[in-house]
Formats: sequence, structure tokens, C-alpha cells
Amino acid sequence: MGIPDENIHPTATGNAAKTVAEHQAKQDLVFYSGWFCPFNQRVWISLEEKGIPYQYKEVNPYKKEKHFLDINPKGLVPAIEYQGKALYESLILCEFLEDAYPDYKPHLLPTDPFERAHARLWIDHTTKAIIPAWHRLLQGQTKEQQDAARQELYAAQGKLAQEVKGPYFAGEEFGLVDVANAPWVAREYILAEQRGYDSAQVGNGWSEYVERLATRESVGKTTSEEDKLQVIYDRYLRDEAQSEAAKAIRAGRVIP
Amino acid sequence: MGIPDENIHPTATGNAAKTVAEHQAKQDLVFYSGWFCPFNQRVWISLEEKGIPYQYKEVNPYKKEKHFLDINPKGLVPAIEYQGKALYESLILCEFLEDAYPDYKPHLLPTDPFERAHARLWIDHTTKAIIPAWHRLLQGQTKEQQDAARQELYAAQGKLAQEVKGPYFAGEEFGLVDVANAPWVAREYILAEQRGYDSAQVGNGWSEYVERLATRESVGKTTSEEDKLQVIYDRYLRDEAQSEAAKAIRAGRVIP
Ligand SMILES: N[C@@H](CCC(=O)N[C@@H](CS)C(=O)NCC(=O)O)C(=O)O
Ligand SMILES: N[C@@H](CCC(=O)N[C@@H](CS)C(=O)NCC(=O)O)C(=O)O
Repeated sequence: MGIPDENIHPTATGNAAKTVAEHQAKQDLVFYSGWFCPFNQRVWISLEEKGIPYQYKEVNPYKKEKHFLDINPKGLVPAIEYQGKALYESLILCEFLEDAYPDYKPHLLPTDPFERAHARLWIDHTTKAIIPAWHRLLQGQTKEQQDAARQELYAAQGKLAQEVKGPYFAGEEFGLVDVANAPWVAREYILAEQRGYDSAQVGNGWSEYVERLATRESVGKTTSEEDKLQVIYDRYLRDEAQSEAAKAIRAGRVIP
Repeated sequence: MGIPDENIHPTATGNAAKTVAEHQAKQDLVFYSGWFCPFNQRVWISLEEKGIPYQYKEVNPYKKEKHFLDINPKGLVPAIEYQGKALYESLILCEFLEDAYPDYKPHLLPTDPFERAHARLWIDHTTKAIIPAWHRLLQGQTKEQQDAARQELYAAQGKLAQEVKGPYFAGEEFGLVDVANAPWVAREYILAEQRGYDSAQVGNGWSEYVERLATRESVGKTTSEEDKLQVIYDRYLRDEAQSEAAKAIRAGRVIP
């Protein structure tokens, strides 16, 4: 009764496999993770940046197994269990880590209320404008769809690029706006190879920003081998993926 | 060169007009408000609940006047200026008020990190599932569209209703999940009159929750006369509205 999307490589590989191996011991925080998922990687990057102790558990979210639905009724990774209580949604989890582990540095959100709100504005822009255009470009099958999505993506990334103080969004400190974008940025090569995407077209220093995010240690440590990821993205590129995100993009709905 | 949507009643009326009159004096915080807008009303409710001093300035966001675009480049209400710096996006503004005015009670987000995240999860559900279905029902022109949207709305509201501890989302204290939903809840009569919506169909105590939110003092104090609002909603009901939200719903895009 499964969907073909279930047949993903079962575990993290490459650098990410090493990180997984280092996080097998029992901890207060259990990270239910899908090694391939960009939303998931946001939380993983935050955990690694802050050095929060966590126990890594791999989940295949396409299987919708009961034990996992008990943790996240939406059946999506990332999710966590913290002192026995469950939470999910990548950005909410990142904010939770800031709130629940105030002594773990770096703080990924500024403490100044205005600066916090400013960061959240650009995370919101990432959610509403960048990610949907990214996925429309990935899944678009006609030249028209791809051209339109590519232009929307350039425009949305260009607006964010304009706000990047450099080297990171808020300046010297890597923070949550960077975390929110890094997983897609690290996958831009797929769009470059298959969808005529060229980060230089974005302007406003986007290419340099991309380079800095993609080479960040926490991003590398949570990245698996490209050939394992490619199998998954091939299904998106043919617009055959049956994930909730893929279906939402196809139907003109919000990514759940 | 304007759009017909510009021709809205220019000012708040009824109870809301009284509240506006009480908030004309200069303050650190200027609230750029559209009296008719449900997103806007979230911020207004928060300000009133917390008793934060604010100066009310009415904006017609459909006019896209330069002075307002300088404050919010997206050209949407609500927006604020705080000590000369601009911010926008209703939910980010509500979180900002919590962060920037820690001494103003009630706190609309719990202090416990897990409970905060739990509230944010259901605000996220409101954004992703409830509001889009609400607007699809409002703008739907065929029976099929309306039936589908109504069922989605019942399902999405039903899930939230199940999480309501009562009388409010988090229990005795009115909070941000309630704030996020109250403006749409207070407009449900439009869907009931025009779209066959019946809050009793939602189940899980939704009707009672709706009643409690709609009669909350801060909601009443920020509500204008129904006939002024009706003119605006008539354009949505005929699917003629040219607002960014209306266009997004029509195009199958995220509400900006
Ligand atoms: N809004 C969610 C999206 C998470 C998401 O879509 N995860 C995907 C993997 S990338 C998933 O679990 N998919 C399972 C499915 O679609 O059935 C978040 O930010 O955490
Ligand atoms: N996501 C925004 C939405 C705000 C919004 O759509 N406001 C509408 C009025 S209800 C607006 O300003 N519309 C002007 C336009 O669409 O041109 C928020 O939550 O603040």
C-alpha cells in the first residue's frame, strides 16, 4: 500500500552519517529526522550550531508509521520529543531550541526585539516567496512554468539578498534567516543542472551568500551523498513525487 | 489608475471609531491600520489587550501611497513604526509586542518554551489551513468550489477546536492563538449568510469558542459597523476583489 516515495535510501550517508553516529546516546531531546529533507536540515543545523545534546532517530516519513504519527499527526519530519513531549514544524522547532536552551550559544535570533522581528520578517519571506518558487521551478514541466518560476525565484531571492548585511544575514553572526535558507541554497546545484537556474542572475551578492551558507560547517555535517539525494529529486524533477509538499505545489496550495 | 478596492469607507466606524478617537496622541508606537482588515485586527486586539500606548493612523492600503510603501514595501496593513523603525506582518507584530513590551500584561504567549511552541504550532495551522480555506469559501463561485472549501474549513477548524482547553485556547488566559483567529471568527456571519457555513458543523465545541472570541471586549472595541464591512466583502463574494490576498487565493498562491 506504500507510495513510491517510500523507497528512499534508508539512512544518512557521507558526512551526515558521521554526525548521526555521534548522536546515538539517549538524551532529553530526541530528533526524529529524515536525512534528505531540507526542512529537517534546518533543525539539524540549529542543533549542531548550538551544540545541544540530542539523540538522532531516522524516520521515513512516507511510511506514516503509527509510532511517528503519535509524535507528529501531520506525519512530517522534522519532529522532536523533548522530555517526553512532541513538537514539529521546522521553524517552530528552531525557535523552540532558542527558548528552551538559552545557555547554548550562538543565539540564532537577536535579543533586541526589533532585530528579532526583522529576522522573522525575512524568514516569513523565505516561507512565502522563496520556497514555493523554488519548488515550482523544481516540479515545473513546461518551459513556461519553469521560466515563470525561475523569475519569481530570482526576484524573491534578490529581495532577501538586498537585506543581507554580510557575511551572514545579520552581519558577522550566523542566524535563523541563514538557517532557514541554507538547505535550499545547498541544493541549488540541482536547479542549476536541471532547470537553467543561475545564482548570478539573482544579483545583490546572492552567489557569494550562497557560497558562504553552503560551505558552513554545520551544513556540511548534515549533508548526505549527492547520488542518494539525486534519486529523490529525480522524482520531483519528473513531477512524480507524492509527498505532501509536492502535492501542495501541484494543487496551488500552501506547503503544509 | 486606482483599483475599485480603493473605494472603501475611509475610517473606522461604530465601536472602533471610539477606540480610534482615544488613540490620536503622539506615541513611540504608531499603528498603521486598515479598519476593515482581519490581519490588522490581530495587532489591534493585542494592543488593546495589553494596554500598550499607541497612535492610530488610518491607511488605505489599496492606494499604495509612497509614504506607506516606505513603511511596508509590501503595501499591506497592518504595519507599525516603533521609535522611527518600521515593521509589518500581523503575526510578527504580535510577537514583537510581546518581546518589546514585556511589562504589559497579559502575556499573550506562555513563558514556558514548550507551551510557546505549542501555541505557535496552532497559529501556524491557522495560517496554513484555516485562513486559506476561509478565503477560498468566501471567493468560491461554483457549488463545487464552495462545498470543497467549506469541508476543508470545517476540518481545519475542527482540528484547532480539539486543542482548545477552554474557555480559550490555552485555558483561562486569552492568548495569541485566540488573537490569530478572532478576526475571522468575528466575520463568520458572512460565510453563514452567504456560503452555507454553519459553525455547529465543525464540532468539538467550535461554536462555543467562536462565541467567546467574538464577544471578547478587545474584539468588540476594534470592530466597525457591519454595513461598511459588507460593501468590501461583497466584492470578495463576487470574486471581484483585487487585493493581494484575493489574487493569491485565485491563483493558488500563498497569501502574501
Ligand atoms: N512545514 C514542514 C514541512 C516538512 C516536510 O514537508 N517534510 C517532508 C520531507 S522534506 C515530509 O516529511 N514528507 C512526508 C510526506 O510528505 O508524506 C516543516 O517546515 O517542518
Ligand atoms: N500577511 C499579511 C496580510 C495583510 C493583508 O493582506 N492586508 C490587506 C488588508 S486585509 C491589505 O493591506 N491589502 C492591500 C492590498 O492587497 O493591496 C499580514 O498578516 O499582515
